[in-house]
Parts: sequence; C-alpha cells; structure tokens
Amino acid sequence: MSNPTIGIIGGTGPQGRGLAMRFALAGLPVVVGSRSDERAHEIAAGLNAELADHGPAVPTPIAGAENGAMVERAQLVFLTVPFEHAASTLEGVRERFGEGALLVDVTVPLQFGKGDVQVVVPPEGSGSRQLRGILPERVPLCAAAKTLPAHVLEDISMQLDCDTFVFGDDKDAKERLKQTLARIPGLRPVDVGGLSAAATVEGMTALLIRINRRYKSREGRFRVLGLGE
Amino acid sequence: MSNPTIGIIGGTGPQGRGLAMRFALAGLPVVVGSRSDERAHEIAAGLNAELADHGPAVPTPIAGAENGAMVERAQLVFLTVPFEHAASTLEGVRERFGEGALLVDVTVPLQFGKGDVQVVVPPEGSGSRQLRGILPERVPLCAAAKTLPAHVLEDISMQLDCDTFVFGDDKDAKERLKQTLARIPGLRPVDVGGLSAAATVEGMTALLIRINRRYKSREGRFRVLGLGE
Repeated sequence: MSNPTIGIIGGTGPQGRGLAMRFALAGLPVVVGSRSDERAHEIAAGLNAELADHGPAVPTPIAGAENGAMVERAQLVFLTVPFEHAASTLEGVRERFGEGALLVDVTVPLQFGKGDVQVVVPPEGSGSRQLRGILPERVPLCAAAKTLPAHVLEDISMQLDCDTFVFGDDKDAKERLKQTLARIPGLRPVDVGGLSAAATVEGMTALLIRINRRYKSREGRFRVLGLGE
Repeated sequence: MSNPTIGIIGGTGPQGRGLAMRFALAGLPVVVGSRSDERAHEIAAGLNAELADHGPAVPTPIAGAENGAMVERAQLVFLTVPFEHAASTLEGVRERFGEGALLVDVTVPLQFGKGDVQVVVPPEGSGSRQLRGILPERVPLCAAAKTLPAHVLEDISMQLDCDTFVFGDDKDAKERLKQTLARIPGLRPVDVGGLSAAATVEGMTALLIRINRRYKSREGRFRVLGLGE
C-alpha cells in the first residue's frame, strides 16, 4: 500500500478540493465522489484543470466516481461534507467500504451565529463519535485535518507549514493515515491519541475560526513547537 | 495601572515559579502568596536567588505574603495551584480581592493514569466555570497560561516563542490581562473569546501533555501561524 488510493466525499467544498489536489500533487491516486457519476467527473475535471494551471502535470489525474463506487475503490476515504450532511452521506455508503479501507473524518459540528461560532456537541460527545456509531465496526474511523483552514488548504500555491491533529482508536489504521498525510509537503501529522480526543480537536476548530475573525485572518493554523523538529 | 502588581497563588509549582520570575524580569512588581507569611518569604527569597543567578538584577525583587494579604495587594492574581486545591484555596481568599482586581485561572482539572492523561470535566462544564461560581461576582475571572508547558515556563534561560490562549467574559479585565501578559518577551496572548472557550482550552492542555509523551518532549507548546505577525 505504498500509494494508497484516496477517496474524497465532498469534493466541491474547500477542504475536499484542497485535500484532493494536494494528494494528487503528492503523487497519490485520488477519486472524488459525488451523488452522480456525471457530477463526479465534472468535479474531477475542474480540479484537474486547476492543477494544470498550477504547474507541471501530476502523475495521476484526479478521477471521479459516484460516492458508493468511489468508496469501493479507495483505501482512505476522507469525509469532507458539511457536518449536517455527514451522517446521511455516510449511511448511503457505509456498506461499500473495501477490505482494510478506513474512513477519515474531517467534519466538525459547528454552529455559526451572531458574530460567534460554537461547536454543537452531539449526544455522543463529539462529531467523530456520532459518525463512529453509523459506520460498521469492521471499518476503522480516524480523524484528521479538522483544524486545517480551508482557505489555506485549497490554495495550492501555498506550501503548508502546520500540523494536523490525528486521532483514532485503531492504531494500524491511524499509522496508515499518518504516513499518508506525511506525503503532503509541509504538513505534519501529530498523533493526539484515540477517539476521546475528538471533542477537544473539534473545539479547536471553533477556537481557530474565532481567532481568525478577531485577527481578521483566514489563514490561522496550529503548529506545536518543541517536538524536536 | 501601567505596572500592575502581580499576585501568584501557588508560587512553589513550576507554573507559579515561572510566571513570577518572568513577570519580575519584565519589570513588574510580583508578590507570591502562601499559607503563612514566613513560607511566602522563603519562596520569594528562593525565586530572587534564582533570578540573581540568571543575570542582572530585576527592578523590583519578588515579595512574599500570606495568601489573603497578597490578594489584597495584587491587581492580577494568578491561581496556579493544582486543580484539586483550587476551589478550597479560592474560598479562603475570595473576599480579599481589591477594587478592580481580577483572578487569572491557570489551573486545569487533569487526571493522570495508566500512560494517558484526561481532562476531568466538572459538572459546570469546565474548571474555569467551576471556579467562577466560587468567586464573588464583582471579581472578574479570566484565564491564561493553561497550555504553557511548566518546564518551559520555569526555565527562564529559554526565551518564549509561543501563544497563550486568553479568555474571559469581562472584556475590560481580559484586555488588562492581555496587555500584562504581552510584557513577557516572546509570549503572545491570543484572545479566544469568553468563558465558553474553557472546556476546549483545558482539553488542549491534556492534548499537549499527550503529545509531549508521544514525542518524548517536555517542551511542546502551541503557536498559531498566519495571524499577520
């Protein structure tokens, strides 16, 4: 699995677009999913056009496929839809995961209102825990990229220089995810433990959005100093 | 209030020691508190000796006083005792705060166990919220320094280069706190909103300790990139 296939659910949002293009630039095969095969091909064509504008050809152009077919092909499936659609989207594809494939939850249950942003904590304690309950037990759930600013992620002219906090209860799956994320130049996966870290990391997303607003930035991002880098 | 007096409850722990010495080096008057006046003077003498070893004399040596008397003198009182003693300590001094003085909560309700660390969320939702309930309404409560690694803070030979997340519901008090923290070279106060941020920031302390253990570091610390610095 030296070049795992990356699946993206939610390839039109900035997080999904950014991850798809950055993994393609890193030389990994990427498939973006959508409700229809036709729409998925359009999204992929748009991303490939943006990559072509950016510079030299990527080794493997981004492909498109209907969500269920995409999930069957991918080794790591990144869920990047808005949180309010996460559960229903996952319910539609949960039986399609291939042997050894894992879900990477990128969603955060945020509520924007009157100049502030808050995490809406689901009864399960965190968004990731809620989604864990929807996924069949045989499919490992990990999380990453929850605190990466969408604006930075989708601007592929910007080299990354920040950390992505990775967590999950399945250690082998988490290790595969960390190795895969480390393929993106400048992005450092920082392991923060099991699924119990979800509430804090999701809270950090809200914190970062609040910081961005206060500092009139769209590019706030976390870096942990002092880890021997 | 250009040179506010800093009070420290818990001047023997690394957080309290570090804050006391760094504020003294920044030229602010510092009073460390303890249960007895005698013990407080001993602690202050120890910190002044360490400052003398470090380099040139500080403008105002660190003073010591019994906790209640210290609280009466200080404009910003930093609570740095272990969380399990925070409530009882605060109950002993809560009526002694001077006009316009504010409490800065540095404590985090952590539980260490079998190779992991977790936040123990109090019924109030966070440690800071619990302490808020103990303090008279007239005394503003803010929080800072919860995610600063004690090891780095107390090593005054290390120039700081990280952020401290500041929150509180009283905007004037929070502004005073931010301005005071900014006096410490290399430390950037980052405003993350009101008391509702407490649960996330306290979770970040546990996250950072977990990261430190995993990366065999004692110096992990947060920096938010992209804020126009």
